Amino acid sequence: MWTNSHIVHLPSCERTNREEMEVAQNTWVGAAPQKPSPYLSNRGNLIRDFTGILREGFLLYHKDKHDEKDNPNGMINLGTSENKLCTDLLSERLTQADMFHIEPHLLQYADWKGRNFLREEVARFLYDYCKAPRPLKADNVVTLNGCTSVFCCLSAVVCDPEDAVLVPTPFYGMIKKHFILYNNVKLVYAHLTSEVSAADENPFHLSVEKLEKALQEATQEGARVKAIILINPHNPLGDVYTSTEMMQFLEFAKRHELHAIIDEIYMLSVFDERTTFQSVLSFKKLPDPQRTHVMWGISKDFVASGMRVSCLYTENQDVISAIGELASFHGVPGTTQYQVAQLLRDRDWIDQVYLKAHRNRLREAHHYVVNELRNLEVPFLHRPAGFFVWADFRKFLKEETFEEEINLWHHFLCEKILICCGKAFECCEPGWFRIVFSDKLPRLQLGLQRLRKALQQLEENHQCIGP
Amino acid sequence: MWTNSHIVHLPSCERTNREEMEVAQNTWVGAAPQKPSPYLSNRGNLIRDFTGILREGFLLYHKDKHDEKDNPNGMINLGTSENKLCTDLLSERLTQADMFHIEPHLLQYADWKGRNFLREEVARFLYDYCKAPRPLKADNVVTLNGCTSVFCCLSAVVCDPEDAVLVPTPFYGMIKKHFILYNNVKLVYAHLTSEVSAADENPFHLSVEKLEKALQEATQEGARVKAIILINPHNPLGDVYTSTEMMQFLEFAKRHELHAIIDEIYMLSVFDERTTFQSVLSFKKLPDPQRTHVMWGISKDFVASGMRVSCLYTENQDVISAIGELASFHGVPGTTQYQVAQLLRDRDWIDQVYLKAHRNRLREAHHYVVNELRNLEVPFLHRPAGFFVWADFRKFLKEETFEEEINLWHHFLCEKILICCGKAFECCEPGWFRIVFSDKLPRLQLGLQRLRKALQQLEENHQCIGP
Ligand SMILES: Cc1ncc(COP(=O)(O)O)c(C=O)c1O
Ligand SMILES: Cc1ncc(COP(=O)(O)O)c(C=O)c1O
Repeated sequence: MWTNSHIVHLPSCERTNREEMEVAQNTWVGAAPQKPSPYLSNRGNLIRDFTGILREGFLLYHKDKHDEKDNPNGMINLGTSENKLCTDLLSERLTQADMFHIEPHLLQYADWKGRNFLREEVARFLYDYCKAPRPLKADNVVTLNGCTSVFCCLSAVVCDPEDAVLVPTPFYGMIKKHFILYNNVKLVYAHLTSEVSAADENPFHLSVEKLEKALQEATQEGARVKAIILINPHNPLGDVYTSTEMMQFLEFAKRHELHAIIDEIYMLSVFDERTTFQSVLSFKKLPDPQRTHVMWGISKDFVASGMRVSCLYTENQDVISAIGELASFHGVPGTTQYQVAQLLRDRDWIDQVYLKAHRNRLREAHHYVVNELRNLEVPFLHRPAGFFVWADFRKFLKEETFEEEINLWHHFLCEKILICCGKAFECCEPGWFRIVFSDKLPRLQLGLQRLRKALQQLEENHQCIGP
Repeated sequence: MWTNSHIVHLPSCERTNREEMEVAQNTWVGAAPQKPSPYLSNRGNLIRDFTGILREGFLLYHKDKHDEKDNPNGMINLGTSENKLCTDLLSERLTQADMFHIEPHLLQYADWKGRNFLREEVARFLYDYCKAPRPLKADNVVTLNGCTSVFCCLSAVVCDPEDAVLVPTPFYGMIKKHFILYNNVKLVYAHLTSEVSAADENPFHLSVEKLEKALQEATQEGARVKAIILINPHNPLGDVYTSTEMMQFLEFAKRHELHAIIDEIYMLSVFDERTTFQSVLSFKKLPDPQRTHVMWGISKDFVASGMRVSCLYTENQDVISAIGELASFHGVPGTTQYQVAQLLRDRDWIDQVYLKAHRNRLREAHHYVVNELRNLEVPFLHRPAGFFVWADFRKFLKEETFEEEINLWHHFLCEKILICCGKAFECCEPGWFRIVFSDKLPRLQLGLQRLRKALQQLEENHQCIGP
């Protein structure tokens, strides 16, 4: 029932030394599947062997992190969607006196859905920052340790094992893991491509027609599709849907009685001032409110992925109650709940200090990276949001296959630059890569230097990346 | 596949007013199963409706908490296994300057198994406090947000759906939920009773014979038993196994190729100085090290159930890797990991301040409660560990049925005293209750006054608890 269809075979890097080779064999995507463990169940073996390009790259980076002083030849990570531009501001805020307050009840068991004070603060925060037409209710909020867990819980309660969920590709690839590991829910894809037409000049553009077609095909093939995932602002594309578009997608979901799982984790990371993000929570009327579930968290917009705090907003009390049961596995420390409530409450800091810097720094870093890509003659999508640029390396592939894409990824890794290839996002066209730009300038510079070098080498000597 | 066989029908409390009745109907065990939600999957509906006596009592308490000033007639909770005796010491320690330190990496994604610094600290801590014969290895440690999550992960990776795990009853009843909700693993029981014989004068005493018999019966009935759960010190009995006993249980597990899941969450809560607790990690040689998995956490021994930090120690690297994948759903904030590492490192405080007070206060509270039980002529097991007394209320039942036990539980609730009945621990003999004593004296006094009143009423007027 669990499948492991994502394994890709990876040729070894000719230029690595023995030690690196060992790392490669143990951890890279495409390492031959391990021998089943006699100690694990079938499920346990599939869980152990479940890996993916995003995670593998991340592990590889952690074995050989770049550090200016201690490891200048270590890996530069422009592969993990993390924001390192405002860590200074957040650290400063989190070490202010008001954060260090411990009441006994924070150390005790409490409502697994999250403490009231936090759920109320989240409801107020979303009301203001999503510009909701009516105050939002704490009763509609569940707080969990990461959107990772929100996906996991939602898939458990709206799907049965082997049900399916529709998602446009490319998409944040970890979601696949969130749906399958515990819950054995599969994803079916609406593939977007770079192809444009006179009617639609926007590459990788999502439309209702594409959703209808994908749903119809999946259903014909026997999939029991129960939900659709919509990421807005989008990872990895950086797209922001207009409210008209989003409304159409929600109408589509309603028509087919699909739950709409809306991931707005990048909602405050729109750095282009000409673009306005419109949260689903800002809509006056939702087509199917009982099947509309919105998630957000502090991992991206508050550069706090290590804090593990996120929330789900839904009017559906059955979903809230069911997730309330599962929430015992996804609890956030009382003390952390307190800190996050303090953070979200501090509107002066958020508006006057944090968000301004957050967006400015994103804009500058984006500007730097897209300029460099232009210099490198790497085409890319110019988008207003997120931490990454979706870039087109197709011309550097010997042929347009995923094997070649992985080879190119591997070649970059040999040059100690981690970016993520399209396969990690289930993109159907080989050759696209996501480059994260939300890092400090010196690291971006070094990363792009290495990228340049890697591309130059390719032009000089194709055999580096051959098997 | 998921079943909901734990629902018991509860008569309404004649003495409650309308408002309380509503609460009762919505939340008490025995509230008629809700109508299936059209928005949830079958699994989702079963998850939503999964409830239990422990959780129901807890929710009820949270709706009407006793507070000396604000709600003196509110519920006294001697039902949740939580320690409120040393919260002052822990709060004080957690607000010392060394705790408020934020390095950027604490705010970022990291190894889901737990950060190295914490896993190393846990390994050192367990090495010292479990008196391990050899240093323990950080590589054998996974840290997760609660033993709740450790149970969940273990059941996912050592069992397939509908596999079974053997557990002696009574036992900490939530485990049932931890095994079934995500993973659909069922428990099979080795029932212990109060019956004693010349050969064994110890009521509810676990022996290998009882395990063998239960395993054989379960297997004959078609159960695929993959593991055994051993809680030591035991919840709810307060028993501490001798190392000879534990070794026999481990030999039994080895004989049948069962994983031994050892829950030592109360390991530092042995308050009777004549008793020495021997951790499985102190054994020179384990019968089947690759199938022996030990968990511990700070919820009980460091009175920090709201912090959500626990660990698993196992030499089995397949189990570690598989749980490492699942751990993304059970992450602990980087900042909390840092604080817990600081806490575990501070041996002066632990040894000179904390543990002494912890044990003394437990001992005193235990002493008070067992004396009161003697005065009330309620028999109980006198045990050296844990936060609770296992007490025999059989003579207060009109007949020895679980319906009558629930009636009695309900009668106590009417008197605003929450203690947990044996059914919550799957005890096979009706009439036993677990009374938590790890609370401040004024609350214990009020709780026991109410218990006395409730028992007196019973003697005067049995009809209060009839349906
Ligand atoms: C679109 C999207 N959703 C969810 C997540 C996971 O968020 P969390 O850190 O809250 O688990 C990510 C992280 O990269 C993401 O990009
Ligand atoms: C024996 C036992 N194991 C595990 C737990 C749950 O621990 P945690 O708070 O770490 O999830 C409890 C809590 O009551 C317990 O009594």
